[in-house]
Amino acid sequence: MGPKTNRNTQVLLARRPQGAPTEKDFRIVETPMPETRPGTVLVQNLYLSLDPYMRGRMNDAKSYIPPIEIEAVMGGGTVGKVIRSDIADMPEGAIVEGLLGWQAFAVAKPKALRIVDPTLAPISTALGILGMPGLTAYFGLLDLGKPEPGDTVVVSAASGAVGSIVGQIAKRQGCRTVGVVGTEEKARYILDTLGYDVAINYQTTDNLRTAIRDAAPDGVNVYFDNVGGPVTDAVFNNLALRARIVICGQISLYNASRQEMGPRNLTQILMTRSRIEGFIVFDYLDRYPEGLKDLSTWLANGEITYKEDIVDGLQNAPRTFIGLLEGKNFGKQLIKIAEA
Amino acid sequence: MGPKTNRNTQVLLARRPQGAPTEKDFRIVETPMPETRPGTVLVQNLYLSLDPYMRGRMNDAKSYIPPIEIEAVMGGGTVGKVIRSDIADMPEGAIVEGLLGWQAFAVAKPKALRIVDPTLAPISTALGILGMPGLTAYFGLLDLGKPEPGDTVVVSAASGAVGSIVGQIAKRQGCRTVGVVGTEEKARYILDTLGYDVAINYQTTDNLRTAIRDAAPDGVNVYFDNVGGPVTDAVFNNLALRARIVICGQISLYNASRQEMGPRNLTQILMTRSRIEGFIVFDYLDRYPEGLKDLSTWLANGEITYKEDIVDGLQNAPRTFIGLLEGKNFGKQLIKIAEA
Repeated sequence: MGPKTNRNTQVLLARRPQGAPTEKDFRIVETPMPETRPGTVLVQNLYLSLDPYMRGRMNDAKSYIPPIEIEAVMGGGTVGKVIRSDIADMPEGAIVEGLLGWQAFAVAKPKALRIVDPTLAPISTALGILGMPGLTAYFGLLDLGKPEPGDTVVVSAASGAVGSIVGQIAKRQGCRTVGVVGTEEKARYILDTLGYDVAINYQTTDNLRTAIRDAAPDGVNVYFDNVGGPVTDAVFNNLALRARIVICGQISLYNASRQEMGPRNLTQILMTRSRIEGFIVFDYLDRYPEGLKDLSTWLANGEITYKEDIVDGLQNAPRTFIGLLEGKNFGKQLIKIAEA
Repeated sequence: MGPKTNRNTQVLLARRPQGAPTEKDFRIVETPMPETRPGTVLVQNLYLSLDPYMRGRMNDAKSYIPPIEIEAVMGGGTVGKVIRSDIADMPEGAIVEGLLGWQAFAVAKPKALRIVDPTLAPISTALGILGMPGLTAYFGLLDLGKPEPGDTVVVSAASGAVGSIVGQIAKRQGCRTVGVVGTEEKARYILDTLGYDVAINYQTTDNLRTAIRDAAPDGVNVYFDNVGGPVTDAVFNNLALRARIVICGQISLYNASRQEMGPRNLTQILMTRSRIEGFIVFDYLDRYPEGLKDLSTWLANGEITYKEDIVDGLQNAPRTFIGLLEGKNFGKQLIKIAEA
């Protein structure tokens, strides 16, 4: 097996965005097919994951992963097929997940890749419910949120790749779940399909603080935060005693070109003796198998479900990513690069 | 033994302050001496503790302790002498600590009082290093801050009743200690007497963020926050990985008549996977003996020390409390109500 072309397609970071990214911040280029070296495999990427954290990497700022250099390939999670290999454990035809970036083909060392079992679930789920977003929901909620039966769990971006799974796991734990979303369609989806008890559309709600209070009259025990900003302010005004707040994302702030201001609310944390904790799934690398085992079982049992928002064509990655940051996706955002 | 007067003096809450309290928010009244009932003792208060948390109780707002009613006696910790008792375990002459409020005399049930051993240390310390502030420092730092040897521990209001003890315990744990204070005199004191490694005077420092960075080049591992506001913002910009932030007080915000605004900084918590936790010492009631045992031992050994700011006369309590909220005290703020 080998590539049918001798050209690669890559999406580069052309320049650092000022505020919200535009298509001009990216450049799509044709480059020579990468060459394998001994001990590496050539992978044809089939799906690319688009995730909010990528916005941070476009800035030249210290973070938990280094910034993407100008003119470098945009980084990101991929699922692909091994099309050239002399490695017995990772033969041609194997489906692999890795961080191969916004490109059609890539060479990688086997240890940087995880073999995906295509009989378990559609291979795209290795970037979603059975991948980084699923594991983020799993460890973030269970390890830091520590939901107890009867707790009220509020999730922002509740229909998103992570939030949709958080809500379902919380429900499975016997919690009352409140999801915050940005469209009526998403509100319906989280109620009807994900089993959320309450949906709040932050775009049409006059008073978020009151809406959260009405949805959580005894206070919020667990808040799984993907967005930050005014939604988070409203939750902080409605915390139960010893609430656990998992800071998983702050997407509402990622496009800010200077630090945004908001109400100082640590007094609320003090009064309620609540705990806020930052969460990044990479810290749980050695526990991924545990999480994937549970998530796979629950998915196979029909206890949890997922939704994907798949856009065809790598050339559409920039505009799709821009939309993701505006909440335009509905479900886990993926780019389909090639047919499996 | 009995009172030499048949009159009590009380400081009442006259009205709810708008912003910073003024003396007109209080009223000092002469009232009849309270009458003991069976099973109660009459206490002559000798020292009154003034503490920042009292500001919150002057508002009509939900909190962890109810607001003080208008025309009610201001609440607060006291040390006094039992002057009328028919209770064997708490005889006349016993020194007792309790929450008897801003008044010269009070009747109380023995179970609401703690007997203080006057041979252990000056009885006023039952309101400071061997009382609520000491226990706040002890449990807040050790239980939530979890300082490890070599950690950099930053303390705001570092010369205050709580902060002065936090710094000394952290030093005892093998940490590098950085104190933030508001005068040069306090800066000298925390360096020379409390053993802080660095003192930052927030009143004269041009750039707090840079000052914290210079003081903690490897990042802040533990932040014990008594003040909130810009000092806290500066620390949040300099967190080490997995920092522990203990929110013990937010005195810089207590006089705000509406919610103050500040930079949204949860992204920093996310990036560093830090933990913020609210702390109130009352949650540790059943562990007070453990804390008092250690604090007494360390005090007796000369491992920790303390400083008191004692103002004579209950009539001076309002203006002294107003000054406390402005950081005018230097050491644990006490009112001496009567000679021991």
